[in-house]
Amino acid sequence: MAGYSSDKQAILKRLSRIEGQIRGVRKMVDEDRYCIDVLDQVSAVNGALDRVALSLLRDHLDHCVVDAVRSDSVAGREKLDEAIAAVDRLVKS
Amino acid sequence: MAGYSSDKQAILKRLSRIEGQIRGVRKMVDEDRYCIDVLDQVSAVNGALDRVALSLLRDHLDHCVVDAVRSDSVAGREKLDEAIAAVDRLVKS
Amino acid sequence: MAGYSSDKQAILKRLSRIEGQIRGVRKMVDEDRYCIDVLDQVSAVNGALDRVALSLLRDHLDHCVVDAVRSDSVAGREKLDEAIAAVDRLVKS
Amino acid sequence: MAGYSSDKQAILKRLSRIEGQIRGVRKMVDEDRYCIDVLDQVSAVNGALDRVALSLLRDHLDHCVVDAVRSDSVAGREKLDEAIAAVDRLVKS
Repeated sequence: MAGYSSDKQAILKRLSRIEGQIRGVRKMVDEDRYCIDVLDQVSAVNGALDRVALSLLRDHLDHCVVDAVRSDSVAGREKLDEAIAAVDRLVKS
Repeated sequence: MAGYSSDKQAILKRLSRIEGQIRGVRKMVDEDRYCIDVLDQVSAVNGALDRVALSLLRDHLDHCVVDAVRSDSVAGREKLDEAIAAVDRLVKS
Repeated sequence: MAGYSSDKQAILKRLSRIEGQIRGVRKMVDEDRYCIDVLDQVSAVNGALDRVALSLLRDHLDHCVVDAVRSDSVAGREKLDEAIAAVDRLVKS
Repeated sequence: MAGYSSDKQAILKRLSRIEGQIRGVRKMVDEDRYCIDVLDQVSAVNGALDRVALSLLRDHLDHCVVDAVRSDSVAGREKLDEAIAAVDRLVKS
């Protein structure tokens, strides 16, 4: 089971909404809408994706990492390093 | 005409690909794939969106802003302020 | 002359303030202050640096890029590409 | 004791280096150096600050959060929420 299991339906719903937002951006471009308005919509999608990422990260720390830490300190440390590396990629993305 | 008109087909294609990536993320969540793998995919989509945003921005500066600057310095300054404000929202998103 | 010449004093002032903020973060660490408070202070410095970066960018577009665009379309395009590449590095930083 | 105690000297050293980098940026502006070069230096400082932030976060999760989780699940959850909120501010900064 993934750490986000209990939030799975909520996360799927948010991803569907983001998919719809991307379709909306595509429509804006197709209709030659003003660049800055398109840009702002792209920024909004980025923000929505970050919020999904933070939910996933929270659930991951709360379950997978905490469980690993509890049962085995070496495995726990590895899980923590892996999570921090993912945050690093998110911060840079 | 929007500033990105000449790149319109390329931008639409990239947005379709991003829409497909989001669908892929949704499938990963639906299949309970490992949190960190889902997170990394979300970071990849963020990166792809940033590249689209930078294309739009480049085209906007290259056309709308430059044209405004050429024809009227007050209008040009306003366009520049507007573009910088959009970059600000993008950097924060 | 650099594009930011007219804002030079204001930019120097903001950089001095940021230098002071970094010194403040160092003092917090030295006094073993709570991690999250230190982290938030680091985020505040990041934000202040982004605002300096956007000022520099604005001045650069407003002067160097616009001048290049006005006098020579090839040189103008090169300046624009260079500026967009710098925004790209800023967004990723 | 703060979670970063064992890395304290290394973090202080990195912060001193960042302070020096800011002074370097100030000198560049004072000498009217080219805007894009200044911008890139600012992006480099942002990157260095993010690496310090991730070190602090890693140590915080590794000690404060893990300890809280081990001793009390409610306190552990609160610490996790607090850490995720700090990551959120970092991602947006």
